[in-house]
Amino acid sequence: MAQSDMSTPLLDPDDHLEQLSVLGPSQQRGASVVCIVGSGDFSRSLYSRLVGCGCRVLVGSRDPGRLQPGLFPEGAELWTQREALQALVDSGGTLVFLAVYPEHYPSLLGLRPLLSGLTVVDVSNASSLNEKGPSNAETLARMFPSCSVVKGFNVLSAWTLLTGAHDGSRQVLVCGDCPSAKSSVLSLARRLGFSGVDVGGLCASRAVEEAPLQLFPSWRGPLLTTVLLFIFLYLYSAMKYVLLPYLDRSENNLHHLALVTVNKALPAAALVVLALVYMPGLFAAVLQLYRGTKYKRFPNWLDHWMCVRKQLGLLSFLCAALHAVYSVCLSIRRASGYMILNAAYRQVQAGVANSWVEAQVWRSDLYLSSGILGLGVLSVLALTSLPSVGQALNWREFTFVQSGLGYTALALSVAHVLFFGWDFTVHPQAYEYYLPPVLVLSLAPPCCVLVGRLLLLLPCCSIRLNKIRRGWVSERHRRTEKRRENRDAFGDV
Amino acid sequence: MAQSDMSTPLLDPDDHLEQLSVLGPSQQRGASVVCIVGSGDFSRSLYSRLVGCGCRVLVGSRDPGRLQPGLFPEGAELWTQREALQALVDSGGTLVFLAVYPEHYPSLLGLRPLLSGLTVVDVSNASSLNEKGPSNAETLARMFPSCSVVKGFNVLSAWTLLTGAHDGSRQVLVCGDCPSAKSSVLSLARRLGFSGVDVGGLCASRAVEEAPLQLFPSWRGPLLTTVLLFIFLYLYSAMKYVLLPYLDRSENNLHHLALVTVNKALPAAALVVLALVYMPGLFAAVLQLYRGTKYKRFPNWLDHWMCVRKQLGLLSFLCAALHAVYSVCLSIRRASGYMILNAAYRQVQAGVANSWVEAQVWRSDLYLSSGILGLGVLSVLALTSLPSVGQALNWREFTFVQSGLGYTALALSVAHVLFFGWDFTVHPQAYEYYLPPVLVLSLAPPCCVLVGRLLLLLPCCSIRLNKIRRGWVSERHRRTEKRRENRDAFGDV
Amino acid sequence: MAQSDMSTPLLDPDDHLEQLSVLGPSQQRGASVVCIVGSGDFSRSLYSRLVGCGCRVLVGSRDPGRLQPGLFPEGAELWTQREALQALVDSGGTLVFLAVYPEHYPSLLGLRPLLSGLTVVDVSNASSLNEKGPSNAETLARMFPSCSVVKGFNVLSAWTLLTGAHDGSRQVLVCGDCPSAKSSVLSLARRLGFSGVDVGGLCASRAVEEAPLQLFPSWRGPLLTTVLLFIFLYLYSAMKYVLLPYLDRSENNLHHLALVTVNKALPAAALVVLALVYMPGLFAAVLQLYRGTKYKRFPNWLDHWMCVRKQLGLLSFLCAALHAVYSVCLSIRRASGYMILNAAYRQVQAGVANSWVEAQVWRSDLYLSSGILGLGVLSVLALTSLPSVGQALNWREFTFVQSGLGYTALALSVAHVLFFGWDFTVHPQAYEYYLPPVLVLSLAPPCCVLVGRLLLLLPCCSIRLNKIRRGWVSERHRRTEKRRENRDAFGDV
Repeated sequence: MAQSDMSTPLLDPDDHLEQLSVLGPSQQRGASVVCIVGSGDFSRSLYSRLVGCGCRVLVGSRDPGRLQPGLFPEGAELWTQREALQALVDSGGTLVFLAVYPEHYPSLLGLRPLLSGLTVVDVSNASSLNEKGPSNAETLARMFPSCSVVKGFNVLSAWTLLTGAHDGSRQVLVCGDCPSAKSSVLSLARRLGFSGVDVGGLCASRAVEEAPLQLFPSWRGPLLTTVLLFIFLYLYSAMKYVLLPYLDRSENNLHHLALVTVNKALPAAALVVLALVYMPGLFAAVLQLYRGTKYKRFPNWLDHWMCVRKQLGLLSFLCAALHAVYSVCLSIRRASGYMILNAAYRQVQAGVANSWVEAQVWRSDLYLSSGILGLGVLSVLALTSLPSVGQALNWREFTFVQSGLGYTALALSVAHVLFFGWDFTVHPQAYEYYLPPVLVLSLAPPCCVLVGRLLLLLPCCSIRLNKIRRGWVSERHRRTEKRRENRDAFGDV
Repeated sequence: MAQSDMSTPLLDPDDHLEQLSVLGPSQQRGASVVCIVGSGDFSRSLYSRLVGCGCRVLVGSRDPGRLQPGLFPEGAELWTQREALQALVDSGGTLVFLAVYPEHYPSLLGLRPLLSGLTVVDVSNASSLNEKGPSNAETLARMFPSCSVVKGFNVLSAWTLLTGAHDGSRQVLVCGDCPSAKSSVLSLARRLGFSGVDVGGLCASRAVEEAPLQLFPSWRGPLLTTVLLFIFLYLYSAMKYVLLPYLDRSENNLHHLALVTVNKALPAAALVVLALVYMPGLFAAVLQLYRGTKYKRFPNWLDHWMCVRKQLGLLSFLCAALHAVYSVCLSIRRASGYMILNAAYRQVQAGVANSWVEAQVWRSDLYLSSGILGLGVLSVLALTSLPSVGQALNWREFTFVQSGLGYTALALSVAHVLFFGWDFTVHPQAYEYYLPPVLVLSLAPPCCVLVGRLLLLLPCCSIRLNKIRRGWVSERHRRTEKRRENRDAFGDV
Repeated sequence: MAQSDMSTPLLDPDDHLEQLSVLGPSQQRGASVVCIVGSGDFSRSLYSRLVGCGCRVLVGSRDPGRLQPGLFPEGAELWTQREALQALVDSGGTLVFLAVYPEHYPSLLGLRPLLSGLTVVDVSNASSLNEKGPSNAETLARMFPSCSVVKGFNVLSAWTLLTGAHDGSRQVLVCGDCPSAKSSVLSLARRLGFSGVDVGGLCASRAVEEAPLQLFPSWRGPLLTTVLLFIFLYLYSAMKYVLLPYLDRSENNLHHLALVTVNKALPAAALVVLALVYMPGLFAAVLQLYRGTKYKRFPNWLDHWMCVRKQLGLLSFLCAALHAVYSVCLSIRRASGYMILNAAYRQVQAGVANSWVEAQVWRSDLYLSSGILGLGVLSVLALTSLPSVGQALNWREFTFVQSGLGYTALALSVAHVLFFGWDFTVHPQAYEYYLPPVLVLSLAPPCCVLVGRLLLLLPCCSIRLNKIRRGWVSERHRRTEKRRENRDAFGDV
């Protein structure tokens, strides 16, 4: 219906009935009236955005007389908080934005009678993460039991409010206990060009208040894993190729530390992390096979691991890309220039007209090709993890890319390493000081994953797995589960 | 209006009138009630998402008693299908999600009386593509003529439902014959944080059911073209530079196959595919010029070709990018090391102090520069084909990027090839075995495109074309068309 | 409510009351009826999109009889403009799309009585930017005072209407003076799968009409700055390293112009532009510190500068990326091959077995590492400026990335330059012709920024700044401001 996008009308039926009696569109009526209590940055940004959308906005300041001119545009309705609220009620509006720091809520207690029956939007953020006690919105709801308090708009910064008029997919989390009040806020959000998301009752307000304070929560674990892994591999190869040779035969490879050693640790880290992306899936499959059902929760660590696969994948891609850049730079660095010159000198002295070694040529060409292709596939994977691209994919396409291309990338990377290492990993001196080369270490996890994957592809496993994923439950499981859900297990999506 | 975002209220007017009589916000009323029939994965995910948005959800299971505890959170209203539906009707709800495999629809016939008048959402997918006969939703509609069946939510996986609370632009395709039922589902979708798209009547349900099964339909053609083209070019240069020399004078270039030959075929493929992006536009223009009107459909092949230009462009970019990486790697590979050393040896033996050839230096610098710039422009093009970026562009900006930058990229690539080939394409030995070099082959299409484009820019053509595109129709066409639409052609956008 | 997403019903109350009296969903009623006046491309695309969403669409053409068959699908309701409008009114519809060029509006004056009371959507674009006089929509509103004119849908091209059914975040700017009419258009837009944005009254229509004609307005300034800067640096180094040496000792470095000189100017430009990204922030902070308040507008030039930081950052990234590619290509080019060969020759002649210089090796490794890392951080920054990625970040994450990572990238780039230049910038011959090397020039701005940033981190500054940003106002400012807003300054968000 026409008024559907306005914030207020149907909250009080009389207003609505009036609405019905209006013939044709009317200028004054229907234009939604909103009140903002407070006159800070947020208030000002919200003001311009609301006015921009054709709302009438009443700003209630503690002391409007002393507001510096120019802060609000000419003609802004700047009143005292009491006046503003009164004007709102008179004009049939019901929506009040509280743009005041939580610590000043008590100063509003005097306005209680005016606020009663109105929808109060609490836009405050939590002052810190993981606080105890009620959230700001809950406190507010207790102070003003006669209002319907809605939490929302706090995820927007004053800056976004001012500039972001044209990014429609910007989300505004809204929660509250009064459905009608909540949906009026949701539709206002949509009208302002944001997409409001209803995240439930006021009990969710703590999460909404903390949302703007989070700092990449889902990235912490994967990032830590990758960094620690890299550091270990770096130190390992630093010890094997720089420290020990120096102590042993005082061979000075210190200059390796800046580039060469990093470029030994990076690909190893990339490979291991990429393997970590596909391990949890295997574990899950094995678990389902063993339990003979999918109707049972995974252990938490596995659930959590499954949820960070995307982040792990992107970090693996990052390492792989850096490795590619580093490898290219190895040929630019001065050192390689000197090496070539000295090699040329030696060759001339030795009078060798042609130093060509076919095997080496093949080796380098093969590991370069597999490496390039592997990285190429990985970058397609990384691309599809962009929100806008991923959302354009349906479930089948997503699975094809993530699982199909993912395993291709893993296989190519393994091939890349094998081709690279084929000549020296077999020589005993590669295991000097009883330390295997880094790449041998890094090969273990991906190989396990690939083997595990192949085993699961065997008919005996795959057929049973598909049955289970389609809802089938093994006899054994049923017995152990005392025939629970044996009918429901069939036929439910 | 306030209730506008709830899924149910206004479907039955009494409920609505009650609504009107409610003064101020009320806790119980207005909270929308939804019923889910079935208790599988999808049902569980949908349950948590709906509850998360403050809906009251009644789950109807075949045998709730045997549902394993822990599958649904504590306090979930798990009843038999009959009880759940009864409770829904009692509480004035009208929305029922059918989370049951289509093959089990008949088992619901007993619930017909309870379901009558309700809105039933069919969330099932097609079991396979291009099936004959009615879609699941159509079957359902026939089984329950007294319900208003709406197709929707099937594009969402259980996974997306659980996790994707915060990707607002995720689309939910909805179709159905009852507008009111449909829009109640659409608004529920929006409330859950998805953007519902109305795709028409139930006749569209087949397409909606098949949507999740599609695997990059729009990419098949372009991908096939590119791959075949690449294979042909690869085999061609493999024959010319590896096979024939071997047969002819048993010259062993086998090691070229891994890298060198690939890097001969890749740029050629990139160039030809890029030309294919701009050909259909030329054809269309010529066709319009010839017909003297735009009010006539293009042949299907041309329409189809026009629709895959974006995909062709991205594939061309992919080939170009790979070519760049390969070219860089050519200088890293062992072979190039050996070549330099041997060259150094020869130079020393020949006693040549300075082997500098100014022309060659210029040539390589020029083709490198043009190549880099061409690739740079191409990557800007590729960037704007990201959904989120492309949507931020208006029509003029989009045209500027796609056509303006596109032709710049094409011109730069052609220059790149010409600079690269200038010295040897003129020598007869480049045409050994009467086979022209690959790059000569690959130059033909882009040159045609560029020439054609230039011709269309001639005043005689461009002026007429602009008139036609503005709606003008040539006398000739009118005569042939018996003066059809000669008035409407004017003045309509 | 169920009808809330339909474009028309509730505009006239009778219709609504009827609606209420309808029991259960009904087929015919509620299906919204829309009329399109005009039968051009846009009309046709709009037609198929509307029909696709289950609307009943009446097309009013000047002369339907002469419309070429096939332009509209079979069964399309093609009538004269008068008939179509009559049918619309009869079926209770109120929405009319005017798909006619503005110059033909007068021809519609005859339809005035029919149109009165209806909602007329003007989909026309401005014919050129910065026109004087009323916008098309305003003209229309004057011609048809009895209609409620809504501006909208003009940002959509016929092409987008046809194909873009699935990009939900595509925005449709809508403005108009009648809220109810406007919101009915907004909800129709949403129903078609676009996200409608209310941009206020009809006074905003000029901007909406010009929107599709804009060509990257926000990029002009930054692009110009970067290009001019690059040109200056290019000419500078061309003079210093090519022209003057030639004039002075007729040394021929002409071949440097294509690659080497470009690669001298690019990194310098990248560095300076990156510094320009962080300068305005410093100025703003200093200004706030000096004024002792944040409640005062910044000068316009600063405001404007702040708004183009993102564009500057991306351009800086572009230059840096190109610089990386160029640098890699330097080692591929023929010239470097010749140099190595000649160096080898000289080394052999001189009989130097080992030309290794440890310092040079360290230098090159260090500047390569810092360069790679700097570019890596910059690319993460560039990534987050993708709309879809940036919108997934909350304010704190955004600040962390933009400011934290940004300064890291700046510091790494400076380190990169310092390592690169350490050996020769100290030699007097680097200042030949009294011209400092380019990199010395380019170091000045970033160093200033880094120093300024460090100063602001000193407790004395940072503490005061935080207080100010929290709303605190210095005594001095209050005095000068005659104690204005000294209370409001506290406690408002």
